[in-house]
Amino acid sequence: MSYVFAERVSYMESSAIREILKVTEQPEVISFAGGLPAPELFPLAEIRESYGQVLGAGDPSVLQYSTTEGFLPLRVNIAANMKKKGIEVGPGNILLTNGSQQGLDLLTKLFINPGDFIIVEDPTYLGALQTFRSYQARFVTVPTDSEGIDLEALKFAIKQYHPKMIYLTPTFKNPTGVTFSTRRRQEIASLLSQYNIPLIEDDAYGELHYSGSSLPPIKSFDQQERGIYLGTFSKTVAPGLRLGWVVASEEMVAKLVLAKQGTDLHTGTILQRATHYYLENFDVQKHLDALRSEYKSRRDLMLAEMRTNFPSQIHWTEPEGGMFVWVTLPDPLDSVNLLRQAVEAKVAYVPGVPFYANGGGNNTLRLNFSNSSPAQIKEGIERLGRIFTIQ
Amino acid sequence: MSYVFAERVSYMESSAIREILKVTEQPEVISFAGGLPAPELFPLAEIRESYGQVLGAGDPSVLQYSTTEGFLPLRVNIAANMKKKGIEVGPGNILLTNGSQQGLDLLTKLFINPGDFIIVEDPTYLGALQTFRSYQARFVTVPTDSEGIDLEALKFAIKQYHPKMIYLTPTFKNPTGVTFSTRRRQEIASLLSQYNIPLIEDDAYGELHYSGSSLPPIKSFDQQERGIYLGTFSKTVAPGLRLGWVVASEEMVAKLVLAKQGTDLHTGTILQRATHYYLENFDVQKHLDALRSEYKSRRDLMLAEMRTNFPSQIHWTEPEGGMFVWVTLPDPLDSVNLLRQAVEAKVAYVPGVPFYANGGGNNTLRLNFSNSSPAQIKEGIERLGRIFTIQ
Repeated sequence: MSYVFAERVSYMESSAIREILKVTEQPEVISFAGGLPAPELFPLAEIRESYGQVLGAGDPSVLQYSTTEGFLPLRVNIAANMKKKGIEVGPGNILLTNGSQQGLDLLTKLFINPGDFIIVEDPTYLGALQTFRSYQARFVTVPTDSEGIDLEALKFAIKQYHPKMIYLTPTFKNPTGVTFSTRRRQEIASLLSQYNIPLIEDDAYGELHYSGSSLPPIKSFDQQERGIYLGTFSKTVAPGLRLGWVVASEEMVAKLVLAKQGTDLHTGTILQRATHYYLENFDVQKHLDALRSEYKSRRDLMLAEMRTNFPSQIHWTEPEGGMFVWVTLPDPLDSVNLLRQAVEAKVAYVPGVPFYANGGGNNTLRLNFSNSSPAQIKEGIERLGRIFTIQ
Repeated sequence: MSYVFAERVSYMESSAIREILKVTEQPEVISFAGGLPAPELFPLAEIRESYGQVLGAGDPSVLQYSTTEGFLPLRVNIAANMKKKGIEVGPGNILLTNGSQQGLDLLTKLFINPGDFIIVEDPTYLGALQTFRSYQARFVTVPTDSEGIDLEALKFAIKQYHPKMIYLTPTFKNPTGVTFSTRRRQEIASLLSQYNIPLIEDDAYGELHYSGSSLPPIKSFDQQERGIYLGTFSKTVAPGLRLGWVVASEEMVAKLVLAKQGTDLHTGTILQRATHYYLENFDVQKHLDALRSEYKSRRDLMLAEMRTNFPSQIHWTEPEGGMFVWVTLPDPLDSVNLLRQAVEAKVAYVPGVPFYANGGGNNTLRLNFSNSSPAQIKEGIERLGRIFTIQ
């Protein structure tokens, strides 16, 4: 039977992220493709203890329906953490979501009519583009300089296209790993105070800094509640939990609650209770320090191996945090074409094209360093070096 | 700041279900309002053991990203259970969702353009109406007779309105508790084979039968894969898990996967693994038998108390399963107005109005019997009887 789908379905594409996961299932492939954390660093024993405690306390309400906003003590915990980042909010400003991807979905549902414009960086997180497209958004891409998104170009895009949302990933961004300067963050917040446009600040990687401390979020400079901050436990605790949060004005949270009610009623009760137990009863900072230390050494190794094995015409970012290195090949090399050779040589990456909202980036690609062992990084970069050298 | 929301936001209303949960938080109120299972019957120890086992097996992949379709062994388990109901499917026909509410959301996302018609029963599940409205659907309501939805009216509605979906809850439906006959199910499947319209069959309550066995789903008579079946663990295991499933053609599942990727990437890995462990290692049938036995006695008690305490002009359904009794007051009594008196007398129900897609039902209301103790049922029905008697 041939179904008659809604118009928006023609804008949905299979996600490169998810399709790539299929390639990486072959154990002999060294994959720098996915955006996966290192599973051997997951706090498995602590999460087990947390579930055991909340399920063992004799309180069956951990398995009952609960409120759409989310478990209040967990929202209190998150609000306190937001304050440490300079974001002055209370639990009424927090909505728990099934990963920050659901935050993106709910916000797009609230703001985007078909054909509306969203301002995005170029390149940007492809999972966000996928969500935005499913609501038939159009994109205005704004270039970045060494300090972050170009302010004049941003201002021009706002005036020219009257966008309904701005989506930025200012810290160790997926896919390039680069970070906006503190000054640029302040300037963006200041610019936004002149326009009635919500800014979505996706901070999935902010805790994964490998030198110094993390920079203040744009939302910490936001005096008029135009900023919407997306956080997640996927990179700091574990992605298989599927737990994230939105920080926004109470008015906005009320609308998000309405949207979430129709979407899935609420996020899992036991999941929220167990995560709250974990945050309150274990040394999260120590766990983060261990993550940073290990990811830093993997980043350093990958960069060192790239310097040794890649020809000099190839350039790449040297990110101070996050999980990714962004590679630019000399024109006219095409990273999609080269991926076939790479997969034959049992090494994988993500071509840059899907990260560009309106096309381009054919000579770019993303490498993940968090999910591979040092031996895999060494061997995988050597394999890639051979492929890039013979072109 | 005043936000500029998308058009669909004006169609989102605060859910009566969720708002009611706030009233029931006052411990002195006897609430027949929510659709909550009895928490004292949750298999708390077994769920605890299941989480402990999957988190204690030393496999960190239980906390990693996983596929959008869902954990394969759980889909195999569900497919085998579907076969027992006469629905011949494999794991490729199953998508795991965050409760069946997410199934409704994803299907509406796939099929509904603003202004499209959906055929619904009158009354029907108000959570479905809320989801459908968030995509700006319009409704065609079709009446039911003693065997289920009226076939001639259904046929007429299909021809007249060219609906994009049909949504039915044929078994112990929320809110009325009534059930379609086997013959009517066959006739609906046969009728659908003539039209290219997906039928969503929401079977949240099918396992909760208090006499005989459950009737075959409409989808078991569906030769051409037009039927889409929604199942959930919310009523049989626990709603706080937030775990349900969609059964559909493989083509449809592929589209649902695309929609779910943009919505939340996938359902929680550990949740799926632990639920699978529970289903494979504990006596689920015995648990269901205990649920049925207890809910049956609560239903019997509520009906007996209604016969004793309610004036003779009031009528109600006598459901053979599920969680609800549907009450019809004599005109012109208005259940919304009477709710104020009820809440003053510390007893709550849901007025019938929100279950009617296009208005009506002012003299109807829904009573839940699963979430109250026998003593609460006795006392609460007496209180309601006094209110209804003095009108």
